[in-house]
This record gives sequence, structure tokens and C-alpha cells, in this order.
Amino acid sequence: MSIKLYGYWRSTSTYRVRIALNLKQIDYEYVPVHLLENGGAQHASAYKRINPSELVPCLVDDDADIILNQSLSIIEYLDERFTTGSPLLPAHALERARVRGLSQDIACDIQPLGNLRVLNQLRETFSADQDAINRWTAHWIETGLGGIETRLQTQAGKYCFDFDVTMADVCLVPQVYNAIRFGVDISKYPLIAKITENCEQLEAFQKAHPQNQIDAVS
Amino acid sequence: MSIKLYGYWRSTSTYRVRIALNLKQIDYEYVPVHLLENGGAQHASAYKRINPSELVPCLVDDDADIILNQSLSIIEYLDERFTTGSPLLPAHALERARVRGLSQDIACDIQPLGNLRVLNQLRETFSADQDAINRWTAHWIETGLGGIETRLQTQAGKYCFDFDVTMADVCLVPQVYNAIRFGVDISKYPLIAKITENCEQLEAFQKAHPQNQIDAVS
Repeated sequence: MSIKLYGYWRSTSTYRVRIALNLKQIDYEYVPVHLLENGGAQHASAYKRINPSELVPCLVDDDADIILNQSLSIIEYLDERFTTGSPLLPAHALERARVRGLSQDIACDIQPLGNLRVLNQLRETFSADQDAINRWTAHWIETGLGGIETRLQTQAGKYCFDFDVTMADVCLVPQVYNAIRFGVDISKYPLIAKITENCEQLEAFQKAHPQNQIDAVS
Repeated sequence: MSIKLYGYWRSTSTYRVRIALNLKQIDYEYVPVHLLENGGAQHASAYKRINPSELVPCLVDDDADIILNQSLSIIEYLDERFTTGSPLLPAHALERARVRGLSQDIACDIQPLGNLRVLNQLRETFSADQDAINRWTAHWIETGLGGIETRLQTQAGKYCFDFDVTMADVCLVPQVYNAIRFGVDISKYPLIAKITENCEQLEAFQKAHPQNQIDAVS
């Protein structure tokens, strides 16, 4: 396989896939798609042929004619296809459902509401200023993280699920990065804060950090 | 198993799980959670103990001490756990990734933006009137369905993926129901329109329709 990941340094869903690729010890080429310059490279016709949804990330394997979108779908594919590194989903169906559930608490209930295109639309439709945008985003992050913190009380160990890193951690760490960016006080969520700290000690997470990407703007 | 599905008739994510339960030929008890009355039963302490995220749906099996949230996670669990009915995900990893991808195009990129709590927040924060709410919702539905229609051109048959009903169809039909409710012209998406029509001829989809639920308001 010769894998390319199309993404953007600060996109939390791209960040998830970078962590997963690292945890699975898969070599890949990172292809930046600049979401802001010239109206957004995700809307250019070359990229639309890869992903008609005009969103990042997208995983492409030219050798095998594979194009996949949606970060959670990509992560599960990598986990099923590659036996290298550590498994990102547990073997037991019920545990797998819980890992997927927590991942989707982030990928369906938090991240979409603070997405760049959504914030732009709030500016356009409702003349939202930056302060209103920040409050909107922080509101959904806090609502979502509050529910997750409660859920973690019954299952968390060193990571979201006991002592194995799973797809849930792969989703949580980028969401916490985004939360801090929007001024959310993570110390209100002690389990989330501790799990994030534990994950960030792993090289797979460090290498995937937005600030360590070739398209990062400091 | 003695399964209870907590949900709301018009919630498209609950609608997805009802279809999946029917396709898998699983008996279940439907427990309505009224999202509007008295500030919303999803925020009551009894329900928060089941789902601290205060959202529907939630699948509960009291006998087995199972509580699961997030519709896609629930659907995959049912598919893995029950061999009855038809499989909702393909056997091959790459095909499975494509089905998950299309399901997430709906569950991550369309549905969350037109969720009841989000529309309420638009009213509160930006004083959005009903007309603005409808345009906001229709915008995201049309953006999302446009991308999906293009994607379907390479893979659709009678259903989203060839001739087998999958989780993608289980997500698509409720989203189309919601699209029509917000005034979107589905005839602009001929493949989506045709697939929906094909699905709606199946009893599993008919029985799951919002209008056929005990908590439906006509």
C-alpha cells in the first residue's frame, strides 16, 4: 500500500486519522489541503473528484484504487486491514459498541457543530461576530464533554476504556485540543484531562499533533 | 434479550435504529422520550442515568445490563450480535468502510446540524426566526445530499450499495424524510429519490416510519 492522507493540520478529524496511522505503524504521505486559502482547496475540482463532499480528511491508495472519506470509517478500515501496531477496537462486540459510541459522541455531537464551514455559515447567515462564534463552539464542546466525563466514570482507566488505547482516545485528544483553542477549561473534566495527558505521552499522538505538521501555522 | 429502544418518533437517528431492528427481525419495546414536553424528557434525571448525553436514541437490555447510545454504534452492535434477518454491513473490509463512510456522511455531516437542540440554540443565540431555521437546515441537507448523490453514481444499484440493503440505506431514508419536512426538493437527487422509493417498499422501513409510532403527532 502507498497511502496518502489528504487533510489539514488543525482539522480535528484529520488529526484523528494521523494518530490512528501512527498507532497502526503505517507509513503514509500527508497531503495538505488548505481549507482557507483562495476560498478553500477542498472546493477545487481536483479535490472534489477525490471527495465530492468537499471535506477533509480523505485516505487514498492509488495502487489499490482506494478512496475513503469520513475519519471514523477510515480508522476502522485501517484497524481491520492492518495487523501492525495495536488494535484500535476491542475484540468483544459490546465493548466495541461502547468504543464506537464514545467516538461518535465526539464525531457526531461535538465536532460537526464547530466545523469551519459551520462557523462561516453562522457568520454569513446570522452576522455572528468572533465572540458569538467562540461562545457557540464552546457551548457544544462543554455540553458534549460533560456527558462524556460522566460516561467515563464507569469505564475509564489510564485511557477511555481501561488500559488499552482505542478509537475513543484517538477522537478525544483532538477534541480536547480544539476545546482549548476555543477557551474551554479542561480542568472541569478531570477524567478527560488525565486521559489526554496519558495519551499525549505516546509518540503516536505527539507526531500527529497539528503543530508538528508541514502545513502548520504557528 | 429483552430490548427497549428509547427514542422519539420524528428523531431521524431513532428512525434509523427502528429500521435496523426490523431488518434484523429483533423484537423490541419502543419507549417514547418526548423531546418537547416540559422542557424535554431527555433532560429528566431518570433518562440522564441512561444517557448522560441527554439525547435519543438509547438501546437498553435490562436482562444483560446493556445500555448503548449513538445510533450507528447501536446498529453495528445489533448486526454483529444477531444473525437473524439480513446483514447490514458487507463482509469485505473495503466495502464495509464505504458503507460506514456514507452512513457517516449523513450522521456526522447532515443530521447534527439540523438537530432540535441546535435549532433551539440558533433561536436563542442569534434570534433566528422559523424562516431562517428552515433555510439553515435545508442548506446543510442539500450540501450533504449533493455529495452523496455524486458518490452514489459509482456504486448504487437498487440500494446505496448494489442490491443489498445496508446501514447506508438505513441512514438515507430517515434523512430524506427529514429533508422533505424542511422543504428540500428530493427530485434534484434522482439516485437518492429512487433508492428511497425502493427501500420504502420494504416492510422493515414502513413499520419504522415516524408516522407509524405510538408517539406520532399527525
